[in-house]
Amino acid sequence: MAFDCDAHGVYPIAPTPFHEDGRIDDESVDRLTDFYVEAGATGITVLGIMGEAPKLDQPEAIAIAARFIRRARGLPIVVGVSAPGFAAMRSLTRAVMDAGAAGVMIAPPPSLRTDDQIVTYYRQAVEAIGTDVPFVIQDYPMTLTVIMTPGVIRRIVMENPSCVMLKHEDWPGLEKISALRGFERDGSLRHISILCGNGGLFLDFEMERGADGAMTGYAFPDMLADVVRESRAGRRDAAHDLFDAHLPLIRYEQQPGTGLAVRKYVMMRRGILGSDAQRKPGAGLPAAAKVEVEYLLSRVSRVDARAAMPVGARA
Amino acid sequence: MAFDCDAHGVYPIAPTPFHEDGRIDDESVDRLTDFYVEAGATGITVLGIMGEAPKLDQPEAIAIAARFIRRARGLPIVVGVSAPGFAAMRSLTRAVMDAGAAGVMIAPPPSLRTDDQIVTYYRQAVEAIGTDVPFVIQDYPMTLTVIMTPGVIRRIVMENPSCVMLKHEDWPGLEKISALRGFERDGSLRHISILCGNGGLFLDFEMERGADGAMTGYAFPDMLADVVRESRAGRRDAAHDLFDAHLPLIRYEQQPGTGLAVRKYVMMRRGILGSDAQRKPGAGLPAAAKVEVEYLLSRVSRVDARAAMPVGARA
Amino acid sequence: MAFDCDAHGVYPIAPTPFHEDGRIDDESVDRLTDFYVEAGATGITVLGIMGEAPKLDQPEAIAIAARFIRRARGLPIVVGVSAPGFAAMRSLTRAVMDAGAAGVMIAPPPSLRTDDQIVTYYRQAVEAIGTDVPFVIQDYPMTLTVIMTPGVIRRIVMENPSCVMLKHEDWPGLEKISALRGFERDGSLRHISILCGNGGLFLDFEMERGADGAMTGYAFPDMLADVVRESRAGRRDAAHDLFDAHLPLIRYEQQPGTGLAVRKYVMMRRGILGSDAQRKPGAGLPAAAKVEVEYLLSRVSRVDARAAMPVGARA
Amino acid sequence: MAFDCDAHGVYPIAPTPFHEDGRIDDESVDRLTDFYVEAGATGITVLGIMGEAPKLDQPEAIAIAARFIRRARGLPIVVGVSAPGFAAMRSLTRAVMDAGAAGVMIAPPPSLRTDDQIVTYYRQAVEAIGTDVPFVIQDYPMTLTVIMTPGVIRRIVMENPSCVMLKHEDWPGLEKISALRGFERDGSLRHISILCGNGGLFLDFEMERGADGAMTGYAFPDMLADVVRESRAGRRDAAHDLFDAHLPLIRYEQQPGTGLAVRKYVMMRRGILGSDAQRKPGAGLPAAAKVEVEYLLSRVSRVDARAAMPVGARA
Repeated sequence: MAFDCDAHGVYPIAPTPFHEDGRIDDESVDRLTDFYVEAGATGITVLGIMGEAPKLDQPEAIAIAARFIRRARGLPIVVGVSAPGFAAMRSLTRAVMDAGAAGVMIAPPPSLRTDDQIVTYYRQAVEAIGTDVPFVIQDYPMTLTVIMTPGVIRRIVMENPSCVMLKHEDWPGLEKISALRGFERDGSLRHISILCGNGGLFLDFEMERGADGAMTGYAFPDMLADVVRESRAGRRDAAHDLFDAHLPLIRYEQQPGTGLAVRKYVMMRRGILGSDAQRKPGAGLPAAAKVEVEYLLSRVSRVDARAAMPVGARA
Repeated sequence: MAFDCDAHGVYPIAPTPFHEDGRIDDESVDRLTDFYVEAGATGITVLGIMGEAPKLDQPEAIAIAARFIRRARGLPIVVGVSAPGFAAMRSLTRAVMDAGAAGVMIAPPPSLRTDDQIVTYYRQAVEAIGTDVPFVIQDYPMTLTVIMTPGVIRRIVMENPSCVMLKHEDWPGLEKISALRGFERDGSLRHISILCGNGGLFLDFEMERGADGAMTGYAFPDMLADVVRESRAGRRDAAHDLFDAHLPLIRYEQQPGTGLAVRKYVMMRRGILGSDAQRKPGAGLPAAAKVEVEYLLSRVSRVDARAAMPVGARA
Repeated sequence: MAFDCDAHGVYPIAPTPFHEDGRIDDESVDRLTDFYVEAGATGITVLGIMGEAPKLDQPEAIAIAARFIRRARGLPIVVGVSAPGFAAMRSLTRAVMDAGAAGVMIAPPPSLRTDDQIVTYYRQAVEAIGTDVPFVIQDYPMTLTVIMTPGVIRRIVMENPSCVMLKHEDWPGLEKISALRGFERDGSLRHISILCGNGGLFLDFEMERGADGAMTGYAFPDMLADVVRESRAGRRDAAHDLFDAHLPLIRYEQQPGTGLAVRKYVMMRRGILGSDAQRKPGAGLPAAAKVEVEYLLSRVSRVDARAAMPVGARA
Repeated sequence: MAFDCDAHGVYPIAPTPFHEDGRIDDESVDRLTDFYVEAGATGITVLGIMGEAPKLDQPEAIAIAARFIRRARGLPIVVGVSAPGFAAMRSLTRAVMDAGAAGVMIAPPPSLRTDDQIVTYYRQAVEAIGTDVPFVIQDYPMTLTVIMTPGVIRRIVMENPSCVMLKHEDWPGLEKISALRGFERDGSLRHISILCGNGGLFLDFEMERGADGAMTGYAFPDMLADVVRESRAGRRDAAHDLFDAHLPLIRYEQQPGTGLAVRKYVMMRRGILGSDAQRKPGAGLPAAAKVEVEYLLSRVSRVDARAAMPVGARA
């Protein structure tokens, strides 16, 4: 499926796999990519906030993105290029687009406050990366402290034809999806794809409000793909039943500050990552939390067998 | 049960009931109080953030607290007295203690940053309200942006003998509970009660980490009381089973900015509040959200019959 | 002079005088009011942020405002009524308007982010206090973290006929004054008075950009009045000469967190306040700072004799 | 003079010179370096916040630092290496140290809140860059929102022997200098150099409190060097007289958000920079501001002839 305004399904936010000593774990990158393809992903997002992008220097970032791109054999790869300034954003964008990326994702810097500041920022960012590079707006106020009204998002979309997608992770955000889809219906906004983040915590209802899928890093993207499929097929109760079985773990993984440790631990436990190591200042999962995660997995496995066993060998 | 360092169970955060025109709804205050008593609450917290305390002027605040106190017939009432300055905090504290409150709750103002600033703030607050007034520390960084380490909480507790309880709603917070209970075991911290907030979103594991119960406003305090009881009795699976059945709704109610509208709507739907009205700038629940909440209630009711019907007549 | 859209001159931000033990010092309130009248003030603003308003409970706040009003014999008194909620804002506004205040000043709460949130806030505030109460917008992003573009201020002014004045203390802010006066010239904004804050730090150029005067608490309002007069009369160099002589002290007094201690100390030293006491968490001026202030006063006094001696006896 | 714990004098914060089209202006880098040497600087700080460091990509940053280093012929060059993560900080540090930098400057990221978070951050940063690289702590709460108490600074200094200097730009900050020097006297803190920022706005008194000089970008570093010399020689009045003559311009240049435009304009006007261009999102000086700056320069030139004419030819 193409990365464009009609994209739907699941774009997992890929974690960046590290060895215990902090080096990048290339084998796990490959295994992770294969896993996403098999899990039914319609794209992959790399170098997001939860991909520990700020902990990489630029040569590392380019190398990782390129490896995902080569391995994904055609699945569109979106690369997070948020940076403190436009020069670094441009050089990273050019490098990954040259390597075959489908597009980039841009988050607003936390200093932005007024509507005009936000709109101007995206205008200048597009000018920096080039108007031919498809991009995703990341709307994530809980972490970024930047609040974009539906009207501001409309201004950005209408002003920049290269905008193809919104990564929606406002919170609360259900009314925002409805507002944007309402703008489309009244003709004031062209159609864009909306994929939702926030660890999937509201995916059940986001789909019903008009979202096209998920862009998030929950450790069971295969489950997210199922929920999106069931929901798009109109099987509401089935979608909620599966979602609710995972919700205790989704919620546990969604804790700010510790969520990535949970996610990497579960993905290691599933045989996808070779290690749950993070680069500093990240920290591993405390012992008590591991026991809790195991308990949660055992409960999820009563409904979803994928929680019970590794998806592959780790050799 | 007394409001002291050994308190446990559930202290619901009471919403403040309003009529549609913004006047205080005294009948609903009474009905709400009766409901809490029957639901198994061991105390009630009034005039919290979710009690719309900042929207009341001080005479209103005192009148509401006094009405809860009179109606609760002995159940301890804790009153939120957070204020922009110590003079208002003192005058409100004196008024509600004279009216029979069991103690007060104090949140740190968002401007505090350093460890010493936080410790000094609580010292001066205690000096203002009087060292004989039992108080609760509210530790709620997601909303207040003040981060208290376990070490800072220990300093506040050890320096102020009138501190009897921590309202714990850090996020993530499980390790914090473990750290504080560890301090008790190593003798560096005296025992205090820990009740947890955050809408109950982590109550299942908070209990297992050493919390004594919940202080939160989820629309089913009766369920919270059951979970606390099961957990304290060591019936782990039973506690999780009940909790997980409510989790989709707990999660929905926990959305910042819209959670109170959900909560008041459900409590109106349960026959406890006469209206779900909020004072401005609060807003009611959008139509689409009401439909979603009804769907969630219908799903919860498959496991918990309390979600299916009103708890009482509404005149 | 009336408090209306054509107001100009100097509205000092009055400190609230306390005795050493924290009680309000009524005699100093009277002396301070008399001093302002003699200093050439065209109005007085009480209960501002630098008036320690958050440290007063509401009965105290009303009593202080009323005392200023009675003593000022006709000079318009503007009262800061910013509050955590609209109920407290309304009850304070009604009380002080009944007592003879000329109008009120409203600052936006720090939680506001988007343009629409700010405009909505002022609409609801005006609804709460009554459309017949003249009010001042306080635009003070350095402390309040709320950024109002010139366009947002225009929306507030045009939507609320009772808005008569902007207290301008954006920083940098010179272009904002030019933009607002430009809006007036192009007919998109009705005329309002603009008085400037920030301790007077930019008053010299603010006047030249179109401001009508100062609303700030610098310890020499008599000097501010002279600068405004010289500037309005077109005596540019004279205005700057006087201003520059005071600038080392203005700058020293403008330090966030310690400025009020400097201000109260100098006003005590001038014989206007009986004490430089602040209520907690405020603190007095450290010994080293007192010596520095004395040195600065001695240097100012080479140009402006008012810096050399008390303006009046202190009982 | 060496860059070590005994460093004093003036380390100008160098702006990064751009051509109008955004390319780096190497000739101006050379001219600027020569100017600093002649102006009496004892070191130069490049790639600071006011050096537009976030607007450069890493190869550009390294190239600029290397050019300053080569041109300075022995004057120590400190390089700002603050970065979103430790990998980028490390690779930039290694590159510039290899190129001959004397040390680096590290600012805390805005997300840090508690004392322990700040101390841990510096420990991990030193681990990343290497314990053999001399570094400066940048303490700049107004922009970074991170508040370091004197006690926290002491912990960082005592824990990391490679810390040689504090760039002090807390505000208010005079008492902080006194507190740190007091720690040295009581033996709890080893001696480090303290150079002050904030555009020089408080340099007069900072010197008297125990600072060793200035590290700031005011467009007249030659004047800063004179003030530091006079102050160190005990000629208090002379230091203040010179400082006060510049204060109206210092204050004008110190406006957040517009200060760099003023600074670059004045340095262009002095013949040091070929252009006052900034990279986006920076903006040039508005026409009205230029007139104001010219007026300020003309007034400064009555006391300090350097404000009257270019320091050198411009091609």
